[in-house]
Amino acid sequence: MKEVAKLMNYRSSVRVVDATLRDGGLVNNFYFTDEFVRDLYLANIKAGVDYMEFGYKASTEMFDTDKFGKWKFCRDEDIRSIVGENLTDLKIAVMADVGRCDYRNDIINSADSPIDLIRVATYINTIPAAVDMIENATAKGYETSCNIMAISNTQESDLKAALDILGQSPVDVFYIVDSYGALYPEQIARVADIFMEAAVKYNKKIGIHAHNNQQLAFANTIEAVGDGVDYLDATYSSMGRGAGNCAMELLLGFLKNPKYNLYPVLQFIDKHMNRLRKEGVVWGYDLQYLMTGLLNQHPRTAIQFTKDKRTDYTEFYKDIVVHD
Amino acid sequence: MKEVAKLMNYRSSVRVVDATLRDGGLVNNFYFTDEFVRDLYLANIKAGVDYMEFGYKASTEMFDTDKFGKWKFCRDEDIRSIVGENLTDLKIAVMADVGRCDYRNDIINSADSPIDLIRVATYINTIPAAVDMIENATAKGYETSCNIMAISNTQESDLKAALDILGQSPVDVFYIVDSYGALYPEQIARVADIFMEAAVKYNKKIGIHAHNNQQLAFANTIEAVGDGVDYLDATYSSMGRGAGNCAMELLLGFLKNPKYNLYPVLQFIDKHMNRLRKEGVVWGYDLQYLMTGLLNQHPRTAIQFTKDKRTDYTEFYKDIVVHD
Repeated sequence: MKEVAKLMNYRSSVRVVDATLRDGGLVNNFYFTDEFVRDLYLANIKAGVDYMEFGYKASTEMFDTDKFGKWKFCRDEDIRSIVGENLTDLKIAVMADVGRCDYRNDIINSADSPIDLIRVATYINTIPAAVDMIENATAKGYETSCNIMAISNTQESDLKAALDILGQSPVDVFYIVDSYGALYPEQIARVADIFMEAAVKYNKKIGIHAHNNQQLAFANTIEAVGDGVDYLDATYSSMGRGAGNCAMELLLGFLKNPKYNLYPVLQFIDKHMNRLRKEGVVWGYDLQYLMTGLLNQHPRTAIQFTKDKRTDYTEFYKDIVVHD
Repeated sequence: MKEVAKLMNYRSSVRVVDATLRDGGLVNNFYFTDEFVRDLYLANIKAGVDYMEFGYKASTEMFDTDKFGKWKFCRDEDIRSIVGENLTDLKIAVMADVGRCDYRNDIINSADSPIDLIRVATYINTIPAAVDMIENATAKGYETSCNIMAISNTQESDLKAALDILGQSPVDVFYIVDSYGALYPEQIARVADIFMEAAVKYNKKIGIHAHNNQQLAFANTIEAVGDGVDYLDATYSSMGRGAGNCAMELLLGFLKNPKYNLYPVLQFIDKHMNRLRKEGVVWGYDLQYLMTGLLNQHPRTAIQFTKDKRTDYTEFYKDIVVHD
């Protein structure tokens, strides 16, 4: 059981990462208004959030810029139009997917960019490609993280091997990503232990990105804090793919560092998030996500079920419960 | 950290208690159709649920039977009209509140009643009255539990004293009730430890009834399972006062005893719960409940906010955050 004193106090190494535009962008194809993005930036500053992820650095060779909002591509000038010189304590992050980012061309030197942190997203089987991206970004002067997706489908021995490779890279943060929202808190504790062993050995930090398929995104995130995980992803109103993420408003309510403030988050939600829902943008916990989470599957079938506005949950369950 | 072997296996002493009619009845004044109740009874049997709570044994002297559905009063003949002789493995429970139940008159001998378990609900300051009800019910042949409400507002030393009194009573189960949805899993672990010490000393079982104000009802329930808590309350679609309870569909997905089946729960939700919502019955996690949970307050202000269909969350927060 965790010590009472630790729970009443705080760890100054904790960092809160707002992933609303990036994971939330997966829900609305990154079509956020500039007012939304600017207000979110200001809310994050007032709330004491440490990093704001603006979106993806996606390849314009692979993705049609007419079919997505600009935050799928996060051009430096678009970020600048929101943050100017960003003379604040809030750092700027973007995500770069292995295999979907022209990082050699599209990521310029950090000294000339408003971006501080490049988050490299990878599955366990493309770690060397991730390392190449991490080395490239480090050489350009960025902080980096390596976000290992679909962790619930990853063998522990493969994970340990991957962390050994990453440990020898210049990456700053190892990220646990429960893409399927499949893990229970006690499993998070075990995964965090594996990450921690490598983090101590190689002097790295650990982060967590949780999904809410089983209403455990917040619970898993605070479990991870207690296990020594420092970088915590959250999104306003849980906005994110499928069942969404750990809610920023829940997380800031929990964290005891007085630098964090809940009120600006509530103000932003009042102004923007409820309107998004009214406009028909759909995300969040529902039965179909429970099912894919429970069955440790990618949520794509559940997302399609949601898009089709189906509510025949039992039929859906029968479809996905057995894979021949 | 909990042992892997224990997580992959199950504890045969675990009991699942469906509290949909009772806690859900607080949302719709107990006006459920007979079809709903009968289908719920059948779903519970098929799902392997151990207890079904039908509602309250409320005093008809204190409450107007014209203003509430029949499950606020749970007359034996009304239960019989659903379950007949109940020749099944599903046991029948009702709740009796301290100070709101004419238990000497309204609770007949168990041999003549379809009810198996009397759940006595009390605050920490009325334990002797609860003991009197427990002794009365035990003498009549019932199983009993004592559900200690608002546990997050209870001093540990008072709780220990209360458990010492209850331990010497004939009660079968001590219940942790997080009425305000205020506790985090690590606090549940500490509370469960206090309960466990008394339970071991007096040879009692422990139960948990969680609320979802901070999206932790399920997380707190499975934390409690790992701490040795056996009686687990859940409701279909989380239906219950305010933010609702631990969802039955999440809990049965988690439990590994093969006697439990998720599918009948999904079928019931398909047929009934979504319709309830469409008819305008409102419950479940929302920001106002996060706030009262976070501030360790009774959810009544949040329930009123919900009834008034307000969405000005920041104004609400300012109202409740400071009490002079």
